[in-house]
Amino acid sequence: MARILLKDFAFLPTPDGPVEERSLVIEGGRIARIGEASELEAEVGRFDRVIEGRGRLVMPGLVNAHTHLAMVLFRGYADDLPLREWLEEAIWPAERHLEPKEVYWASLLGIAELLRSGVTAFADMYFYMDEVARAVEASGIRAQLSYGMIAPDRERAERELAKGLELVERWHGQADGRITVALAPHAPYTCGEWLWQRAVEEAQEHGIMIHTHLSETAQEVADSRARHGKSPVEYLADLGVFAAPVLAAHCVHLSDRDIEILAENKVQVVHNPSSNMKLGSGIAPVQRLLAAGVNVALGTDGAGTNNNLDMWEELRLAALLAKVGGDPTALPAPQALKLATVNGAQALGLEGVGPLREGMAADLIILDLEGPHLTPQYNLASNLAYALNSADVETVIVAGEVLMEGREIKSFDEAEAKARVRELSEKYKEIRRSRWD
Amino acid sequence: MARILLKDFAFLPTPDGPVEERSLVIEGGRIARIGEASELEAEVGRFDRVIEGRGRLVMPGLVNAHTHLAMVLFRGYADDLPLREWLEEAIWPAERHLEPKEVYWASLLGIAELLRSGVTAFADMYFYMDEVARAVEASGIRAQLSYGMIAPDRERAERELAKGLELVERWHGQADGRITVALAPHAPYTCGEWLWQRAVEEAQEHGIMIHTHLSETAQEVADSRARHGKSPVEYLADLGVFAAPVLAAHCVHLSDRDIEILAENKVQVVHNPSSNMKLGSGIAPVQRLLAAGVNVALGTDGAGTNNNLDMWEELRLAALLAKVGGDPTALPAPQALKLATVNGAQALGLEGVGPLREGMAADLIILDLEGPHLTPQYNLASNLAYALNSADVETVIVAGEVLMEGREIKSFDEAEAKARVRELSEKYKEIRRSRWD
Repeated sequence: MARILLKDFAFLPTPDGPVEERSLVIEGGRIARIGEASELEAEVGRFDRVIEGRGRLVMPGLVNAHTHLAMVLFRGYADDLPLREWLEEAIWPAERHLEPKEVYWASLLGIAELLRSGVTAFADMYFYMDEVARAVEASGIRAQLSYGMIAPDRERAERELAKGLELVERWHGQADGRITVALAPHAPYTCGEWLWQRAVEEAQEHGIMIHTHLSETAQEVADSRARHGKSPVEYLADLGVFAAPVLAAHCVHLSDRDIEILAENKVQVVHNPSSNMKLGSGIAPVQRLLAAGVNVALGTDGAGTNNNLDMWEELRLAALLAKVGGDPTALPAPQALKLATVNGAQALGLEGVGPLREGMAADLIILDLEGPHLTPQYNLASNLAYALNSADVETVIVAGEVLMEGREIKSFDEAEAKARVRELSEKYKEIRRSRWD
Repeated sequence: MARILLKDFAFLPTPDGPVEERSLVIEGGRIARIGEASELEAEVGRFDRVIEGRGRLVMPGLVNAHTHLAMVLFRGYADDLPLREWLEEAIWPAERHLEPKEVYWASLLGIAELLRSGVTAFADMYFYMDEVARAVEASGIRAQLSYGMIAPDRERAERELAKGLELVERWHGQADGRITVALAPHAPYTCGEWLWQRAVEEAQEHGIMIHTHLSETAQEVADSRARHGKSPVEYLADLGVFAAPVLAAHCVHLSDRDIEILAENKVQVVHNPSSNMKLGSGIAPVQRLLAAGVNVALGTDGAGTNNNLDMWEELRLAALLAKVGGDPTALPAPQALKLATVNGAQALGLEGVGPLREGMAADLIILDLEGPHLTPQYNLASNLAYALNSADVETVIVAGEVLMEGREIKSFDEAEAKARVRELSEKYKEIRRSRWD
């Protein structure tokens, strides 16, 4: 592993802290030293690489805490439709044709998009997850992966759990620790009690997380109350699911009691503003969750409902959406930046990843702050949260490796991934035509 | 003026139409011919320039139908504050120190930002407008300019109207017709009846528009009802204001009767989703306005409340915000693209500007569609509305002149504008410190 000096950068170790002028030594995948360039050069001696700051900014990488990465293959496949029609008429029929190799290329394309917007880690739930793991391994990014288990009956549930556990066995801790694996019962309404309880036991035994969708739509909550006499959050709580660490995506429709339960059980909540808006699901009560002490992270959801994986857009949208109810002081810029970065690392249970301190993982991004849209600069956090464009991300480093530099992906052939996905899309265009024309 | 051939482009003449493969001849500021490259080369002979399509897209430029351009100088100056505190404690005290030359450099910087996101025309309301006009003239962009008149009493109103009319006389129709001027009584609650009525008379006499802010906040509507016994829209209607063509920004809080009045009077409405969200003003009823037959355009508002001038973000946000109430079919992608382009040209009363047909103004943009976030492409409109990034805008042509090419501003020195605004911001940093620290 290379020993790198980041020399004379504007440095934002954590998004709600002050900006400093610093140099950083990266070694063994971690931030070995932070200080003055002169002092570091003298102490540490020669470097394999020196990257000059020239007024650019180093900050923690963004964490996309909920996505279905390979769905970039279905970007724009069907839009502006009611959720049920989108799923039943468009996405599920297309997904039935998916092949493992397609998931590999789509995941690699998705990782290119993530890196280009400054994402250093993501949490994924999909299928053919070995292919996603291979793309993560090849690309150098960090990820929490999970196989999305959908099991209406017990027999199916056993097969699904076995698949989920195979992924754990094969990939948890792999790629120098960049890959962790979670168990993912898809949602309270798509998995039975047996599967939920077994998933929790296995998660506890393996020391891993549960990743699920929770209280995404008003309909889901109404159905849960009709079927179980309780909200989805209460239902999972009563099943004992929160005995394991849980990453819960969406959490749009929550009662005060639900929020108490999430807070008491330290459930990690992922807010997906674009997806929730685009599907008309509603607005997650982010302010109420934060006030209750819940750790809230941000995610793009899949490209099928977004339609990109641009975490800077999610960050800006989260800050704006929090205010739409009438309080312009809600979710101020530094807090929105935290949601997209350090809160995400915490939500995924990534140990030693987050604020840029000595000893922490070298998961960081370099931003060009010279664009006209970032001029002038009175308040760095405001410029980052409200005015920055993801194309301002110049360089991305994960676990000490330079994965993108000067907006060029270094760790894999992005052009090939694009070409492959373009080819693959021809098959789905045909499927689309045969159903809809 | 150069005679340009745009050769073999993907061509979207209007955003809700189909994409075609075409070449375009630009001559005398207009689109002279549209056809096959071979045929056009033979017929029209030699060109001063040939720009090759190579799969890139030509579409109408975006129109930012409501901004306060020079406020880029106050980008991030104060954020996450209630509107009154933001205005009274931060922005107004700062604006009192503004000098004409500062407005020139800030406007030029703002135009760089507009061009970089593919904007070919904008509507501005501010002060020291001669300086804005000079920046528009120098940069080659198209604009509707207006001096924002604020007049609590009659004496002030006469002075304000005189200033507004001076701008009309000096600049309306200047810069080869790229500049038009409107009269801008700032809002129903900041201008008296005499000024409103005189402004309408003058607008009719000069054949120009009225540009104003209308029904932006719930408070404004409540105050109007308390003071006049009617909504702001009813109040202006009864004053006879809608006898002139009116460009009305915001229109967030509207009754059914208000919408009828706006439709009957062909009032041009500008939706500003980022600003309305950021200030907690609310969500404009865009669907109801469109259903009533109102022409709705899009604007960024000033950078003080946005904090950028990125019209692609507004476009995406408008499409998402329309759906948040629960209808995922609201404001589908092609319609959102219309709001940001041809509806904007119509809203500003720009004759001969809009869809790209023979004889229309050559106000157009060239987009690079090769990014990973635009791959694959099942549906062009979806990719443009939901996934495109403003950094994908490669080239901008206004009135037949290439103002940006390969993301380089050609018509003025962008670096100088940035440097000047950076220098100017030091003065305001000092003012900010002296008030707040």
